[in-house]
Amino acid sequence: MRIALGIEYDGTAYNGWQRQKSGIGVQEVVEAALARVADHPIEVTCAGRTDTGVHASGQVIHFDTEAERSERGWVLGANSNLPPDVSVSWAREVSESEFHARYTAISRSYRYLILNRFARSALSRNRAWWVHQALDEKRMHSAARSLLGEHDFSAFRAAGCQARSASRNVTSLDVSRTGDWVVIDITANAFLQHMVRNITGVLAEIGSGDREPEWARQVLESRDRTKGGVAAPPQGLTLLSVAYPDEFGLPKETRQSPTG
Amino acid sequence: MRIALGIEYDGTAYNGWQRQKSGIGVQEVVEAALARVADHPIEVTCAGRTDTGVHASGQVIHFDTEAERSERGWVLGANSNLPPDVSVSWAREVSESEFHARYTAISRSYRYLILNRFARSALSRNRAWWVHQALDEKRMHSAARSLLGEHDFSAFRAAGCQARSASRNVTSLDVSRTGDWVVIDITANAFLQHMVRNITGVLAEIGSGDREPEWARQVLESRDRTKGGVAAPPQGLTLLSVAYPDEFGLPKETRQSPTG
Repeated sequence: MRIALGIEYDGTAYNGWQRQKSGIGVQEVVEAALARVADHPIEVTCAGRTDTGVHASGQVIHFDTEAERSERGWVLGANSNLPPDVSVSWAREVSESEFHARYTAISRSYRYLILNRFARSALSRNRAWWVHQALDEKRMHSAARSLLGEHDFSAFRAAGCQARSASRNVTSLDVSRTGDWVVIDITANAFLQHMVRNITGVLAEIGSGDREPEWARQVLESRDRTKGGVAAPPQGLTLLSVAYPDEFGLPKETRQSPTG
Repeated sequence: MRIALGIEYDGTAYNGWQRQKSGIGVQEVVEAALARVADHPIEVTCAGRTDTGVHASGQVIHFDTEAERSERGWVLGANSNLPPDVSVSWAREVSESEFHARYTAISRSYRYLILNRFARSALSRNRAWWVHQALDEKRMHSAARSLLGEHDFSAFRAAGCQARSASRNVTSLDVSRTGDWVVIDITANAFLQHMVRNITGVLAEIGSGDREPEWARQVLESRDRTKGGVAAPPQGLTLLSVAYPDEFGLPKETRQSPTG
């Protein structure tokens, strides 16, 4: 049997999703919790491997098991064996031959949060990038238009990124403001390592007025990582959701919290 | 000189606002940071003493000092001496004879967050009360009408509450829902100890259907703490703002973050 799970985590204390040589990856605490529920070792595959300090409200994973548990049983069982900063939101039995958390995913949606004000924020310290220079979000949104569509995103990938092709299709990229918060919402078929954080770094330099809006297109066309800006820090980034074909019947909604 | 400060804190690691015999109060880390900026000992007075685990995005304090610093200097100086989970948002010089953070405050506004869904949430573990039974927020809002206005709130105060009078004037009390989130927003001239958490506990029992809407009024009129429900846990509660007369020219806005 193949089970798909929706996973939420606060990435602050983890060295990213993957099993690590040093430090702890979210993957290993999830596998340990599921192994206790299943009574046999479990290996999971995720939709998007997040980096150290990056969060997820809608990560999706799958695993194969011989254990017969209800969907409710997988959720409650996993949650009682996971640490407080990792949780399972839902479980669905899926087709072992047709569903793969990574390969059948149609798109991934990330949100990057910038707190744009004079003083730092205690409550958002692990959930946003504090930028004190005034950012013009309309200018950032306008510059972001040139990144829409299918492009070679080599200029926005990490040096260590192991993807074979750097071609990705960005289907939406919106920059908006709510009070002191600048919100970058981006959806693509898939992402290169550090791609959202590198895009955010470039857009922030445009938003502060240090660079012209055309710079985003120029960096993209250079296909050269050294032409870009500084990567935005990880704590502002959250994997919001992963989309799959409707036939799998997975939950879709993206939850946003009204935390102050 | 008297200085007013806007303070934000994540209360998770603190034993409440006040200086504690054991554990650390937010007050002592704020006083230590300000003493470093002022170069002399500082004693601060706050608008609302929050309990262990309760947060604030808009706490207001005042202190007296002989040190001449710009408003910007107080904010930046304090923030570089405070731990990451406490921050200063603004500073204003106020009249020593006319302003007092506690006594000149007109009202306090708190928000209580309930996450109302089947599974617990990693990202909101320290910022919301997880209630898995379905809550009817319209029923809660309707029941809350009977608590509006000036009443003796003895039935909603903590056993150890030291206020002389239990009379408080609740000027607004709204229960609303955004997706899985039930949000309780309450403003009063002042609050008794545990008052918001006790009100939330009663409203939650009404929302789940365990009690009738009239029960809120019956508990209020009993003036008897033992007639109420269980106090909601502290992590769902945030002091959002404190209102003062316009003449003091303090910042007013309540910030809400779009964290997912």
